[in-house]
Amino acid sequence: MSERISFACDYEKGAHPNILKRLVETNMEKTAGYGFDEISESARNRIRKACGRKDAIVEFLVGGTQTNAVMIDAMLKSYQGVIAAETGHISTHEAGAIEAGGHKVLTLPHRYGKISADAVEKYLEEYYHDVNHEHMVMPGMIYLSHPTEYGTLYSRDELQAFRKICDQYDVSLYVDGARLAYALSCPENDVTLRDLAEVCDAFYIGGTKCGAMFGEAVVVPDPGKMPHLFTIIKQHGALLAKGRLLGIQFDELFRDDLYMRIGEPAIEAAAVIRTALQKKGYRLFFESPTNQIFCIMENDALKKLGEKVEYGFWEKYDDQHTVIRFATDWGTTEEDTASLIAVL
Amino acid sequence: MSERISFACDYEKGAHPNILKRLVETNMEKTAGYGFDEISESARNRIRKACGRKDAIVEFLVGGTQTNAVMIDAMLKSYQGVIAAETGHISTHEAGAIEAGGHKVLTLPHRYGKISADAVEKYLEEYYHDVNHEHMVMPGMIYLSHPTEYGTLYSRDELQAFRKICDQYDVSLYVDGARLAYALSCPENDVTLRDLAEVCDAFYIGGTKCGAMFGEAVVVPDPGKMPHLFTIIKQHGALLAKGRLLGIQFDELFRDDLYMRIGEPAIEAAAVIRTALQKKGYRLFFESPTNQIFCIMENDALKKLGEKVEYGFWEKYDDQHTVIRFATDWGTTEEDTASLIAVL
Amino acid sequence: MSERISFACDYEKGAHPNILKRLVETNMEKTAGYGFDEISESARNRIRKACGRKDAIVEFLVGGTQTNAVMIDAMLKSYQGVIAAETGHISTHEAGAIEAGGHKVLTLPHRYGKISADAVEKYLEEYYHDVNHEHMVMPGMIYLSHPTEYGTLYSRDELQAFRKICDQYDVSLYVDGARLAYALSCPENDVTLRDLAEVCDAFYIGGTKCGAMFGEAVVVPDPGKMPHLFTIIKQHGALLAKGRLLGIQFDELFRDDLYMRIGEPAIEAAAVIRTALQKKGYRLFFESPTNQIFCIMENDALKKLGEKVEYGFWEKYDDQHTVIRFATDWGTTEEDTASLIAVL
Amino acid sequence: MSERISFACDYEKGAHPNILKRLVETNMEKTAGYGFDEISESARNRIRKACGRKDAIVEFLVGGTQTNAVMIDAMLKSYQGVIAAETGHISTHEAGAIEAGGHKVLTLPHRYGKISADAVEKYLEEYYHDVNHEHMVMPGMIYLSHPTEYGTLYSRDELQAFRKICDQYDVSLYVDGARLAYALSCPENDVTLRDLAEVCDAFYIGGTKCGAMFGEAVVVPDPGKMPHLFTIIKQHGALLAKGRLLGIQFDELFRDDLYMRIGEPAIEAAAVIRTALQKKGYRLFFESPTNQIFCIMENDALKKLGEKVEYGFWEKYDDQHTVIRFATDWGTTEEDTASLIAVL
Repeated sequence: MSERISFACDYEKGAHPNILKRLVETNMEKTAGYGFDEISESARNRIRKACGRKDAIVEFLVGGTQTNAVMIDAMLKSYQGVIAAETGHISTHEAGAIEAGGHKVLTLPHRYGKISADAVEKYLEEYYHDVNHEHMVMPGMIYLSHPTEYGTLYSRDELQAFRKICDQYDVSLYVDGARLAYALSCPENDVTLRDLAEVCDAFYIGGTKCGAMFGEAVVVPDPGKMPHLFTIIKQHGALLAKGRLLGIQFDELFRDDLYMRIGEPAIEAAAVIRTALQKKGYRLFFESPTNQIFCIMENDALKKLGEKVEYGFWEKYDDQHTVIRFATDWGTTEEDTASLIAVL
Repeated sequence: MSERISFACDYEKGAHPNILKRLVETNMEKTAGYGFDEISESARNRIRKACGRKDAIVEFLVGGTQTNAVMIDAMLKSYQGVIAAETGHISTHEAGAIEAGGHKVLTLPHRYGKISADAVEKYLEEYYHDVNHEHMVMPGMIYLSHPTEYGTLYSRDELQAFRKICDQYDVSLYVDGARLAYALSCPENDVTLRDLAEVCDAFYIGGTKCGAMFGEAVVVPDPGKMPHLFTIIKQHGALLAKGRLLGIQFDELFRDDLYMRIGEPAIEAAAVIRTALQKKGYRLFFESPTNQIFCIMENDALKKLGEKVEYGFWEKYDDQHTVIRFATDWGTTEEDTASLIAVL
Repeated sequence: MSERISFACDYEKGAHPNILKRLVETNMEKTAGYGFDEISESARNRIRKACGRKDAIVEFLVGGTQTNAVMIDAMLKSYQGVIAAETGHISTHEAGAIEAGGHKVLTLPHRYGKISADAVEKYLEEYYHDVNHEHMVMPGMIYLSHPTEYGTLYSRDELQAFRKICDQYDVSLYVDGARLAYALSCPENDVTLRDLAEVCDAFYIGGTKCGAMFGEAVVVPDPGKMPHLFTIIKQHGALLAKGRLLGIQFDELFRDDLYMRIGEPAIEAAAVIRTALQKKGYRLFFESPTNQIFCIMENDALKKLGEKVEYGFWEKYDDQHTVIRFATDWGTTEEDTASLIAVL
Repeated sequence: MSERISFACDYEKGAHPNILKRLVETNMEKTAGYGFDEISESARNRIRKACGRKDAIVEFLVGGTQTNAVMIDAMLKSYQGVIAAETGHISTHEAGAIEAGGHKVLTLPHRYGKISADAVEKYLEEYYHDVNHEHMVMPGMIYLSHPTEYGTLYSRDELQAFRKICDQYDVSLYVDGARLAYALSCPENDVTLRDLAEVCDAFYIGGTKCGAMFGEAVVVPDPGKMPHLFTIIKQHGALLAKGRLLGIQFDELFRDDLYMRIGEPAIEAAAVIRTALQKKGYRLFFESPTNQIFCIMENDALKKLGEKVEYGFWEKYDDQHTVIRFATDWGTTEEDTASLIAVL
């Protein structure tokens, strides 16, 4: 409703039109609650197929923080903590949801949002070598995001290295896929849903930022690993009464593989904007491959820009400069991109 | 999708058509997240007006268990518990969400879902007279539902009696209004939104069962009473990224006072069904005034009925009989009702 | 220090003289912390031997509420609750410690502090037959106390009936033995430490009320069942730095089987007091076999008695009468008993 | 019991002889439980007097982790976290006890265990300037230890600077005094109990490491600030049944100001050891003023030393060197010190 062009974040619009259409068509149908309806089952099966795991548990939740809190609680013992980048969403912007569930977030330094398997291995090694480790929080799982909060990507090799360490130290691997569609549509990405299903104990396929009104689809490839997940979801207040609303959204997102390509407009727009920024002499913070563009701006120039464009504040760079973020999304049009470039 | 007629519960359909229409119209608009958009503000203002409290805090959450868990956590100190009927939703069907937040539910016997102010007073009196009360959970608030889980109603006088005790013992009053629309449309009800805003420290206006796709609107009449509620909501994983989805639903539900009359079809249908049941010789469990009908059925007859109608199992009555529940809703049509009666 | 004779409770004195003697002797020795010292290991071995389980985990904690909170947390999954008598210590007088750990106490009606295996079986059966049970708290363990809060005893047969149900429904069995010494010294009791080690997943041997200054010894007969208990204890703030203080106490309590007979003076005194009360025309509330005596007193007589004797208030009986409790202990002398009887 | 000389930590011995004597003298007295006895009241009054606060709340708890968990829970709202040095005891060696209570530990970099008021101010400033701060954990208190885990000391000026920031940002100040006696006996220290009572919202006076068998005395200078602390203590399983055991210990520790000078032998011994180490060519890690000595040792020399002396492993320094800790205590004798120096 603002007059300004907005590239502030990737969850400002509603949903992909197919989803709205299906919502309207099914509106007055009566279905069983809590995801026990046929549409939800269809959506689950489409996701299972896309992941190459016929028997996977698939559960639909409403939002990302909720999903992380539920799944981390489901995956950890009461005395365990979760290893994450210090910039991980669970470390910074979930208002202590993980700690509210009783678990410490064990943070490691990051490089543009990523942590390395080596760093995790060193952490685990030092934990078990410390004579006082039984007085410390036992690491029980690793939290990664793909793409990360900085839009960076893990490679398949990197994920497999994490898996190896997980097996060695008996910790679980969980991937937060809030923006997964933007990885799947990104040329630099070599991680498929099947890869995630192979290396992860659990992961989630983001809907909210990727074409759904709301919703995240949790996948637990090995169903024996997570008994009573339904009750855990309910206990967290995360069970949607009209579960089919989530079923409809993911059934549409996975019809004809829409989810695999829904992020393309965002990736293309981001590339165009990055090029334009550089041409116009702006300095990128770093080369982020997906739908987020981080740019170092002079504070004065930024003030002017802010009159015409909504952007995301990222962090202070120095006294004269600020890092800002532009985010494109599944619905970004060439006109949107052109408008932004025109005012840069 | 089932061939059977369903009166199993009141959250089997989608949403009121006005809501869907608005969702479609606004779909590609870009708005600020987390409820900071103009539509959400409009919805908040409509609710404030309906409650006669211009400065009330109004927050939109996704579901009932979530709302109860968030608000009880927000209203209690860490060492306090919440008084509720032993049949209260928080006591039975929230999978321990309140306890997961660290709080004990202090249950009292009910009469068709209701507790009395006298019983609560006695409880509080005995607590403070017990020499060991500092070793016990301190009661910090009262949880009521209106209508209750049995569809029964509190009167304005009854609510005021609770308020008096709350003031006397320094406990808070909270009303779960998951089915509030069915009270507001019910001739037996004398409690208005303004009354709730007067007697309660907080209450919620149910959307999920009352015409919304999903959503509950929390009202805190006195804004000074609940600082940092936004952060508490976020901490519980209960903050919807695209907050306007909730704003839209409540903006439509409170446009032209729709919410005050949206329950009428349900109340009328329930009355017709009750009369029909009695005419056909069925025994009602008790006279529930709102949109839920409780009926004592012979187990053999029930098996037959189940082939044609979906109903809710309530409880075992005796070895030969079962109490079942039919629920009507805002979208129940005369045809639906006629179909049900035809097979009874 | 009061001039009045006190039978108010069984934790008013210090410790058995052997314990004090050993404390004094070892005071300036330097030993490893946290129970890794040789005295603690000796105590653990004496307890293992008394329980007939060489490989049992034995951990020493400081108090009863703490032990219950730690062990219930260790035994339950995050989404499970604990079944207990509505009069169980965890249900009433632990200030919500179990709920603070995130777990609901699922209460059953009691008979003088006891619940029956039948009642638990019925509860579990109904839980699993309820179509909505996944929305409810999953029962994960049974909490019993032996003796109970009313001083009553379970028989070996009764405990074995609980075990059978536990195996059938995959729930754990835990016995709170805060007053276990008074059972072991009681002629009516047929439950040995070996029996407890056979039927329980975990239990604790009470020290605080049974001759120690403080301390409770947790026994986990099957060590594979409770990994990382040390860390759980630490996480609960329940790990004593100078662990040998607990080791010393239990090493003395289990030297020459002292614990098996330490309760005898209490049991004998209680029998004498019960007989005297009845002779003098007082009415016993019920026939409690161990070291607690429950007596129904006229309120006027009670006021007079209170000038000379400290007793425990138990509950209101009717408007004219009150149930009070006298508690004897390991250190009660014949003189103490005579003094009490003299003023009755 | 080991043949080796031990300087491994400062909680290896029992208690000051005065405490044992009093325990023996009072052993068979019957007193009220939970700290409601006269000895505990005497101890509370002595501490109140020493702190210059006649009306302070004084509560006795058993151990340090427990005390921190209870007090942080008592001081924070459910959505708040606690600011601490990354080396703070609550950050590292309490097995997640703070997170188990639902609170995040917000860590800042340290300098030999200390954080600065400036760093905290910057943290708070940045928190409130961040547009997303409502999605983050709200800082509600500051945790300091005095002496710190590295044996370093805050000055009175530094504490007052923290107080100023606390007032400015409405956060509370809490000091963990596990080793407080060693500060009070240290020439470099200028912080008195009265100073702590002036600047802190709460602090605790350590007993376990300072001459008691066990026990920590919590002081809340302004009693209005912490209602229902007793119930919070009970809820955490931290209430000692025979409260007088704690009362006795602190009554003795504060009789004739013993606590103010009980650390002197430790401080003197530490100074002697430091000088000896330097004379013998060892390198100190840094100049720690209190009862802990940190020394950088060659790994080969360390192995030899370990055959004769028990020391504390602190951290790896580099591939060839290790930082170790020697700890003296209230009971360290000149003979102990001489023995250590003889083998260095």
